[in-house]
Amino acid sequence: MKEKVILAYSGGLDTSYCVKFLAKEKNLDVYSAIANTGGFSKEELADIEEKAYALGVTKHVTLDVTDSYYQNCIRYMVYGNVLKNNTYPLSVSSERIFQALAIVNYAREKGAKYIAHGSTGAGNDQIRFDLTFQILAPDIEILTPIRDQVLSREDEINYLKKEGVERDWSKMAYSINKGLWGTSIGGKETLTSDQALPGDAYPSQRLKEGLERLELEFLAGELVAVNGQSFADKVDAIREVERLGSAYAIGRDIHVGDTIIGIKGRVGFEAAAPTLIIKAHHLLEKHTLTKWQMYWKEQMANWYGMMLHEAMYLEPVMRDIEAFLESSQSNVTGKVFIDLHPYHFHMVGIDSTHDLMKSDFGEYGEVNKAWDGDDVRGFTKIISNSLKIFNNVNKGQLDIKQ
Amino acid sequence: MKEKVILAYSGGLDTSYCVKFLAKEKNLDVYSAIANTGGFSKEELADIEEKAYALGVTKHVTLDVTDSYYQNCIRYMVYGNVLKNNTYPLSVSSERIFQALAIVNYAREKGAKYIAHGSTGAGNDQIRFDLTFQILAPDIEILTPIRDQVLSREDEINYLKKEGVERDWSKMAYSINKGLWGTSIGGKETLTSDQALPGDAYPSQRLKEGLERLELEFLAGELVAVNGQSFADKVDAIREVERLGSAYAIGRDIHVGDTIIGIKGRVGFEAAAPTLIIKAHHLLEKHTLTKWQMYWKEQMANWYGMMLHEAMYLEPVMRDIEAFLESSQSNVTGKVFIDLHPYHFHMVGIDSTHDLMKSDFGEYGEVNKAWDGDDVRGFTKIISNSLKIFNNVNKGQLDIKQ
Amino acid sequence: MKEKVILAYSGGLDTSYCVKFLAKEKNLDVYSAIANTGGFSKEELADIEEKAYALGVTKHVTLDVTDSYYQNCIRYMVYGNVLKNNTYPLSVSSERIFQALAIVNYAREKGAKYIAHGSTGAGNDQIRFDLTFQILAPDIEILTPIRDQVLSREDEINYLKKEGVERDWSKMAYSINKGLWGTSIGGKETLTSDQALPGDAYPSQRLKEGLERLELEFLAGELVAVNGQSFADKVDAIREVERLGSAYAIGRDIHVGDTIIGIKGRVGFEAAAPTLIIKAHHLLEKHTLTKWQMYWKEQMANWYGMMLHEAMYLEPVMRDIEAFLESSQSNVTGKVFIDLHPYHFHMVGIDSTHDLMKSDFGEYGEVNKAWDGDDVRGFTKIISNSLKIFNNVNKGQLDIKQ
Amino acid sequence: MKEKVILAYSGGLDTSYCVKFLAKEKNLDVYSAIANTGGFSKEELADIEEKAYALGVTKHVTLDVTDSYYQNCIRYMVYGNVLKNNTYPLSVSSERIFQALAIVNYAREKGAKYIAHGSTGAGNDQIRFDLTFQILAPDIEILTPIRDQVLSREDEINYLKKEGVERDWSKMAYSINKGLWGTSIGGKETLTSDQALPGDAYPSQRLKEGLERLELEFLAGELVAVNGQSFADKVDAIREVERLGSAYAIGRDIHVGDTIIGIKGRVGFEAAAPTLIIKAHHLLEKHTLTKWQMYWKEQMANWYGMMLHEAMYLEPVMRDIEAFLESSQSNVTGKVFIDLHPYHFHMVGIDSTHDLMKSDFGEYGEVNKAWDGDDVRGFTKIISNSLKIFNNVNKGQLDIKQ
Repeated sequence: MKEKVILAYSGGLDTSYCVKFLAKEKNLDVYSAIANTGGFSKEELADIEEKAYALGVTKHVTLDVTDSYYQNCIRYMVYGNVLKNNTYPLSVSSERIFQALAIVNYAREKGAKYIAHGSTGAGNDQIRFDLTFQILAPDIEILTPIRDQVLSREDEINYLKKEGVERDWSKMAYSINKGLWGTSIGGKETLTSDQALPGDAYPSQRLKEGLERLELEFLAGELVAVNGQSFADKVDAIREVERLGSAYAIGRDIHVGDTIIGIKGRVGFEAAAPTLIIKAHHLLEKHTLTKWQMYWKEQMANWYGMMLHEAMYLEPVMRDIEAFLESSQSNVTGKVFIDLHPYHFHMVGIDSTHDLMKSDFGEYGEVNKAWDGDDVRGFTKIISNSLKIFNNVNKGQLDIKQ
Repeated sequence: MKEKVILAYSGGLDTSYCVKFLAKEKNLDVYSAIANTGGFSKEELADIEEKAYALGVTKHVTLDVTDSYYQNCIRYMVYGNVLKNNTYPLSVSSERIFQALAIVNYAREKGAKYIAHGSTGAGNDQIRFDLTFQILAPDIEILTPIRDQVLSREDEINYLKKEGVERDWSKMAYSINKGLWGTSIGGKETLTSDQALPGDAYPSQRLKEGLERLELEFLAGELVAVNGQSFADKVDAIREVERLGSAYAIGRDIHVGDTIIGIKGRVGFEAAAPTLIIKAHHLLEKHTLTKWQMYWKEQMANWYGMMLHEAMYLEPVMRDIEAFLESSQSNVTGKVFIDLHPYHFHMVGIDSTHDLMKSDFGEYGEVNKAWDGDDVRGFTKIISNSLKIFNNVNKGQLDIKQ
Repeated sequence: MKEKVILAYSGGLDTSYCVKFLAKEKNLDVYSAIANTGGFSKEELADIEEKAYALGVTKHVTLDVTDSYYQNCIRYMVYGNVLKNNTYPLSVSSERIFQALAIVNYAREKGAKYIAHGSTGAGNDQIRFDLTFQILAPDIEILTPIRDQVLSREDEINYLKKEGVERDWSKMAYSINKGLWGTSIGGKETLTSDQALPGDAYPSQRLKEGLERLELEFLAGELVAVNGQSFADKVDAIREVERLGSAYAIGRDIHVGDTIIGIKGRVGFEAAAPTLIIKAHHLLEKHTLTKWQMYWKEQMANWYGMMLHEAMYLEPVMRDIEAFLESSQSNVTGKVFIDLHPYHFHMVGIDSTHDLMKSDFGEYGEVNKAWDGDDVRGFTKIISNSLKIFNNVNKGQLDIKQ
Repeated sequence: MKEKVILAYSGGLDTSYCVKFLAKEKNLDVYSAIANTGGFSKEELADIEEKAYALGVTKHVTLDVTDSYYQNCIRYMVYGNVLKNNTYPLSVSSERIFQALAIVNYAREKGAKYIAHGSTGAGNDQIRFDLTFQILAPDIEILTPIRDQVLSREDEINYLKKEGVERDWSKMAYSINKGLWGTSIGGKETLTSDQALPGDAYPSQRLKEGLERLELEFLAGELVAVNGQSFADKVDAIREVERLGSAYAIGRDIHVGDTIIGIKGRVGFEAAAPTLIIKAHHLLEKHTLTKWQMYWKEQMANWYGMMLHEAMYLEPVMRDIEAFLESSQSNVTGKVFIDLHPYHFHMVGIDSTHDLMKSDFGEYGEVNKAWDGDDVRGFTKIISNSLKIFNNVNKGQLDIKQ
């Protein structure tokens, strides 16, 4: 009896090659699996399934982990306003982890001896798959034909042709990776440092002109309504924001950063929903959280995003940070108003019963009610103590050259 | 002989009231001083001087600290990409400190018994003045007539009229504070949480349509050339970027944050130059700094910005952070390309001999040259060790609910 | 009818003066209250009550908040291994907050118009009382006769004598503050920088010689058993460790640090239980937590300790940090072995089912089983990538002067 | 002509095997080199040299990098009070990096094709050598016979015997690694979690009883005098402290922590000088630095120690952190007094002209001079603003369960 291999299958050239290679050259029983984190439509999934069976897999499954991805990851990225290097909402990075988790769980369930993925040896995804597989199933051997054989596209196409697989493998000008939390775009410009992606490299084109007001409503940090419409499934709320924002071509940029293997990389993305949701959520937090909550959230979330990006989602400290983030969100409730324009947006303001600007205390810029000049004098006297003493002990050290 | 008071004078209603009040009611010899951090033109300074003498000051001086402000502060805010709450370039916050420093040094030089400012009791500026004065000159008494008497504008105007001062004191709809590093705008909308400032509240109006390419050149972290033109005085380079960017109405937003006295505040600003320079500098850093330099710079600079905003510029730790920031900038050299559009801009890319994307090593997304699949396998094996062990010792704890 | 004042009463000279002063000079109805956080014996509390009534209070209550103090504070200090400036277990700092909370809650319950404490104007305690009272009961006015009148001990004694109160007020050579989480000791040596406290300044004297083995058992971060004996009430476990450790005079030191009002202070303490429990807990964590859990715990707990010390326990971020700390403790279970000697101790080791040293994986220092030399070669190749590239781009910059 | 290999040679069994193996089986021209970071005496170095030539090396050199090690590393570990996991002064970790640097520089100088070390595949040292070699000399191939062949001691001894090398290779009960900044000790107890090292496992035995006062003098953070005797060479000052402290068997402990390859490890050490110098330096800092300098130093230094331990000394951020640390030390000048006892010590106090406790300002615990009760009232009023507002907006949320 043949040994079983679970292959993370996407329907593209690389994983199609893997199906044939693993079945024929390695004599394995190939189970293909695609983990849907919310980026695929039913039609796309059906098409992928059809292609898998056409290549001769023993069995193909679609593992829907959209809800798990939202509950265990997107939610925390919103709580933390996670934008890698202040720009990138971890569109691909984060979903790849949940795809890897789904695949390895399926492999454990099936008692597979092997698990395979089609990543090359240059990027981050190989690490996301390898690490997740190794940690959760150290006994299952990982096969990576594409990485190991360092094949060109032509080599793969020729092999498949030889095996009787005829499909239009024509390469797209841009490599596109569409997901629930954004789409990444790679192409010749992203291999340079000095060029932007042309407008038509972005899959979704601008549809609207002018100005549109958007209202996002949050409940304890989670997006629950869009323009007054409530969503039972929070994933649908994200999709609605994406629909509205991408019509203005909002959320496009290029991420520049360090890959897990230590080289700098550049990747384009469009992510209307993540960008709008995170910026709105952040503004609501500025009104409802204390200064030190903001301060520590930023540090914890920065780290959370880095580890998530670098395939360390399973580190126990991530669960501890999630507990911190969750605790911080109890008052992050209210509406946020945003003006959408072509290619950019403008935060208008918020309305919240937890708004710390709304108290019967002193208001900024107006006459203070809860304290007087003597109180401030006392305050500045006391908080200047440490530096007064420093200056007294270390004469002249505090003077600034003018 | 009368005692001397040094008054931080701006030419406005509050400090005009102070001149008369201090001279007449307190019987003091009033020396007015204005500290220019680069926000005033020669004409404005001459006008302020004329007004001061018209009010009867014994002596008026303009203290030019633009260069000190750039060298001791703006430079580090750029090194640190300092944007308070990810938005506000500390336009007023930072210059106020350098004005306070200039005033207190002048007071020490003159051997003044008193030092006065016209701040009210609700905002941050009173703390910036009080703290700086107290720390550097604990023996000079601070007088704050506006804060202490809690006067209305009408009270002040009537008093001045009674003293024979007739000027047009009509209140502007918006309170504007123009400086080298940006202009702050307060008005009725900023007292709410849900409204944006109208376009005409911003002092500089949009002049251009369409698209314009901007090239900023940095040398060891400092802006040295704009569109190919070098600037001997770096302050002039900032002014040139401001001129170009404000023609597109770039860099407008509302800052929401905690004031030093603990209440939340909201203030509009326009800051084309700071916004463009910081975003360009940050992009250049993404290409030229290592991951951990980026990581630590962000934390140090976040703190630096907070303390600067909160009037703790003199804290010795600020000098230590500056040493860190300065050390980090040696390779932040190169050109940054930006597309300017009305109300927004788009980072195009960079060109730098220190660009870490440009090596004869493996390039992201392309076939790797310096390592192979086995190396990555070894890498993922070793970095998964700690979590493999964790999972081995604590069975099942790493499983994620799906 | 007289207005009610709730007085935080300790039985000492200062608060005794307050009783008389508030009743007679202020014509108030004095309710004295002592908040017991576990530092007082029944006898001491009865004695304090007797003294209060002897001074003529309308009513005296003992508010027992030991359990709240343990559950809401000590527990987290242990989770966080909180030692201020790496030395001081926040013995007085932390309990004072819970005393203030108890007093203000009692005052709210009684509908008191005033609340009073006997702190002077030089220390931290005044801030702990004032802040807690102001935040939770801004409508209740705070009275601080000792601080306001700046009286000498003689003044207070004479006033009490005049009022017919005759007691032996002879000043102790050292000011002692005994609590559940340690005892603070102030005296003439702590006012200098260069002298240690003499042995007899410490209230509990060394009773034992030689060596004794101590075994502490933790369950999810909490001390649950001592030398094999389980404790239903975790406060009793702390008391047992204190009894055993103080017999060896363990946990004595001097804390040097910044007070809330900005001056440096020095205070002696003895805290056998906190010292032993925290060091044991920390060792157990080194075996059971991951590297990044340790890293972030240290930072969060350092901040937690600082804010607690500085009377900001009520800041919402503290609850968020507590959520983080609690999440981190699930595996901190096991036994810790310690050797007690006169004046010092030695950590022997631990035994835990969650010990990450105990896996069937590679063991440190022995031949590795789960990877080979090629894996390590791959690992070092990949993790050196970023610096190899840096060195390739920036020739010679990594060379270290020799 | 044979190719050249530079071998990091220590005189022990593993590297002796390497000499023979590289010369005979690999047919290489073996240059042995020992990098002295201050841990070897002249006699030991001469003995190692003699052994190297006896084994037949082409050339042997001693590379003295003690001064570089002090200037580029120890100095910063003292500035940062670096104790890994609050315990371990990085005795071996830090010197291994400087040995690797010396070896790779020598190899570059000699134009060697190969570089070799004798580390096994289980520990940290292999990573320290590999990483440093790879980063600075990516073109030189690294040979690691011991790691690759996974030989037992017997295998090595037999091979050497066969090659005519007869020496007493009897294994010591404990593996000892002596260096300038401490000695590490591994043995059967350190492979467990629950046992301490026996007293005689430590190479230097206790020589003295009773009590001895030690005075350490620092100048801008560096130890410059011991018991009143100045040292021109700061390395000699360290040796003097080691001599005095080890006579009391001070500075012994067991480090538990994560290795670079992700497994937990335990290693004993004795490090009298590092322990005493760091604790003394830290105490002096508590008196001379501001609160925020202390706060940030701790975080930066913690990271510095971690990266140093994990072989990332060459990361550019380390130079930035060093700039921060150096900047912080300008006032860390003064004397520290310590009482030495057998196996432990007690910090007595300090004397410094920069002592922030010594000002003509208010002293802790005494009547305040520079402010009064009203000032403190104003202070607490203002700093409680943010939480008063929070409580006003979010009624009841700040209440603590009692």
